[in-house]
Amino acid sequence: VSVDGDRLAARLAAIVGAAHVVTDPALKSLYEHDATGRFSGSSRLVVRPGNVEEVAETLAACSRSGAAVVPQGGHTGMVGGGTPRDGEVVLSLGRLQALGEIDRAASQVTVGAGVTLERLQLQAAAGGLDFPLDHGARSAATVGGMVATDAGGHLALRYGTMRALTAGVEAVLIDGRIVTRLGGLLKDNAGLDLPELLIGSEGILAVITRARLRLVPARRRRATALFAVADLDTALAVLDRLRAATPSLEALDYFEETGLRRVCERLGLAPPFSRSHPVYLVAECAADVDPSEQLLAAADIVEESAIATDAAARKALWRFREAHNETVRSLGVPLKLDVSVPVGAVPVFERDVRTLVEDVEPDAELILYGHLGDGNVHVNVIGAGEAADTLEDLILRAAADRGGSISAEHGVGLAKSSWLDLCRSETEISLMRDIKRVFDPGGILSPGRVLRE
Amino acid sequence: VSVDGDRLAARLAAIVGAAHVVTDPALKSLYEHDATGRFSGSSRLVVRPGNVEEVAETLAACSRSGAAVVPQGGHTGMVGGGTPRDGEVVLSLGRLQALGEIDRAASQVTVGAGVTLERLQLQAAAGGLDFPLDHGARSAATVGGMVATDAGGHLALRYGTMRALTAGVEAVLIDGRIVTRLGGLLKDNAGLDLPELLIGSEGILAVITRARLRLVPARRRRATALFAVADLDTALAVLDRLRAATPSLEALDYFEETGLRRVCERLGLAPPFSRSHPVYLVAECAADVDPSEQLLAAADIVEESAIATDAAARKALWRFREAHNETVRSLGVPLKLDVSVPVGAVPVFERDVRTLVEDVEPDAELILYGHLGDGNVHVNVIGAGEAADTLEDLILRAAADRGGSISAEHGVGLAKSSWLDLCRSETEISLMRDIKRVFDPGGILSPGRVLRE
Repeated sequence: VSVDGDRLAARLAAIVGAAHVVTDPALKSLYEHDATGRFSGSSRLVVRPGNVEEVAETLAACSRSGAAVVPQGGHTGMVGGGTPRDGEVVLSLGRLQALGEIDRAASQVTVGAGVTLERLQLQAAAGGLDFPLDHGARSAATVGGMVATDAGGHLALRYGTMRALTAGVEAVLIDGRIVTRLGGLLKDNAGLDLPELLIGSEGILAVITRARLRLVPARRRRATALFAVADLDTALAVLDRLRAATPSLEALDYFEETGLRRVCERLGLAPPFSRSHPVYLVAECAADVDPSEQLLAAADIVEESAIATDAAARKALWRFREAHNETVRSLGVPLKLDVSVPVGAVPVFERDVRTLVEDVEPDAELILYGHLGDGNVHVNVIGAGEAADTLEDLILRAAADRGGSISAEHGVGLAKSSWLDLCRSETEISLMRDIKRVFDPGGILSPGRVLRE
Repeated sequence: VSVDGDRLAARLAAIVGAAHVVTDPALKSLYEHDATGRFSGSSRLVVRPGNVEEVAETLAACSRSGAAVVPQGGHTGMVGGGTPRDGEVVLSLGRLQALGEIDRAASQVTVGAGVTLERLQLQAAAGGLDFPLDHGARSAATVGGMVATDAGGHLALRYGTMRALTAGVEAVLIDGRIVTRLGGLLKDNAGLDLPELLIGSEGILAVITRARLRLVPARRRRATALFAVADLDTALAVLDRLRAATPSLEALDYFEETGLRRVCERLGLAPPFSRSHPVYLVAECAADVDPSEQLLAAADIVEESAIATDAAARKALWRFREAHNETVRSLGVPLKLDVSVPVGAVPVFERDVRTLVEDVEPDAELILYGHLGDGNVHVNVIGAGEAADTLEDLILRAAADRGGSISAEHGVGLAKSSWLDLCRSETEISLMRDIKRVFDPGGILSPGRVLRE
């Protein structure tokens, strides 16, 4: 492997420049584990092409030498999709930093795969527009990875996931051929829609190098509410009321008593209300005139509420929800699952999960939160110990049994490929394998991700 | 063929009942031509299954006997995609009429392929919701056909095309296997997204039998404006102003002087304004409070305007735009092309088309109109005579040269398969052919549509 590796390294250095082929073990190791600490592996080398032509030549060279390749974006994946193993070549897209001019007529922009979400958001804002997708990893997550995993976040309720915001892609096939669809046409019924197939394909079909993204006019006024409610059924009633009351509803996230207590402990915060409640909701509206009145539409069914319109106060309300992730992490390596169920099934699914944890590991602590309007539940089990694997399996099965998906936002990657058949039929998986073979006959692009070997 | 045909007819009768296998030439002929009068052909028989299992058995039977099949919806296609030829079996989805209960928590509904757009709209309205896609063929066009062709219409500016409104599909493969994804999850990153591949695939991969569709809360107040503007560049400035002013903008259609004159002649209408203008826009906003004030955002750059809020007056303004289709048809069989270009390129593309028509057939009359905000131009040439084929080719090339598509809303079907390579690369078409083979190895489902033989 090492002689071959040297030969490939030399070939790649001729394409991208020696400075962009990383073989030094210490430097390479930065690319060999993921942000969760759960996945790590070995790479033959890391290659950092600087433009689409270099990506194409790099892939063609790997293809010729039969070297397996894993594309890597901002290193924020949660399922091992971008972490190398067994000496794969890491194809880092971080240098694809081109950020085009905003096209006002189309309300779109063309963006390189390596541009971070935050940079994109700032660029849009400078043009009086918003890129209406947001999540906690905004400073590191890149456009390429977000397209490849159909990223979600808390604004999906109003604007949809990355798919809805992607008007086109440029991608490179494993043999070096380039597919370019960056015209950004809203209506374009001309044959099978290959970009739609690539969105969410997690790097198993092609390497995304650019995306044409949709922007929306910036809405100047925001209002955020924190509601305490008696239970999740009431939370769904709040969703229904707010949705009917206003199209300006952008987000409806939720968390619960246990999670809030842990967050307040960790951050040294006073709880938001004088009493404790089973369920909390964070709702946000954005419009051209102060939308806080719209947030009163559910006033008669909530227990307590706080509404904020200035940035600092809004941020303080969001903090209770946003700090859940770091708080959970501070309690040890949790069993952490990202699933979705039909919106109306969130209450019954939560009951399923509680019962499972009580039955299997009664000492474990269960912290549930997520994007209620999207049916997207983040399940965190702390102190699952040796029962973690059993619980993971049972909880994924429970989601599937309620008509849900084993992956809402994070993707399948390596982490969940063994469970894909819980929510996809044999027919679907067989079609996926056949399509994978069309794009990557040698099976060297992100092998084992999504579709297990 | 006739003996084989009889045998297949008997087999299909055993599946769907003899009453639903049509072999009588007079009855069959109702399924053998399309609404445009441009496409007609012969079918071996017409089969009308009543549920998904019957569709599956029907396709499996056709598959076993190697009989080519063409699915047919509401008979409103414009490109010959659903019209049989060479003795194909017509698979009519008209009996798949199930219309599910509205799921308020998800704001979705599951709908059989044979349900018309109008029936779906009425059902949604009865539940206080809207299905936010509309077009002139609403009384006949069916959900199955609309998903298969990723239908557009004038509301796409705000709500997207059928793709954006489709949360899942059920479809049957040519060998009778059924793919069901009707959970309607907003976030569901679990493997390649086969429903997204089927949307817009025009019946060449599978037969769509049901769809899970997104609904939006009905907005109670609407306002419609008719604007006269000096030119298309000003029209684009109006779009930019309105979009920035309000998220309630649902539609921005346009038409021109020649078309308006013909419409007024045909319908015996007085023109809308005292003077004639080069370009007219119909803008519509929908909100919970009267949005007519938002329509004033472009008041200083339009020549004349009329704004209406009550239904009859709004309809009267829309009539000038909506009557274009029937008016054009009344002038003879026109050369009729549905293309899209990047929104900002509409003015230059229109100049291209005018020049082409003047050069090739100066006596022809050119009527242009469409959905400006979508970059969707309907090109109609009346009296093109023997130059029709030449002009069709040149106009499609002009659209592609401006970064556009040969098909915006209508699809490729038989009509445009020879031009697919104008807007899709050799690599893309080769991938499409390979994917087609994955789904339909025998090449008997909608042969020759989209991908020419």
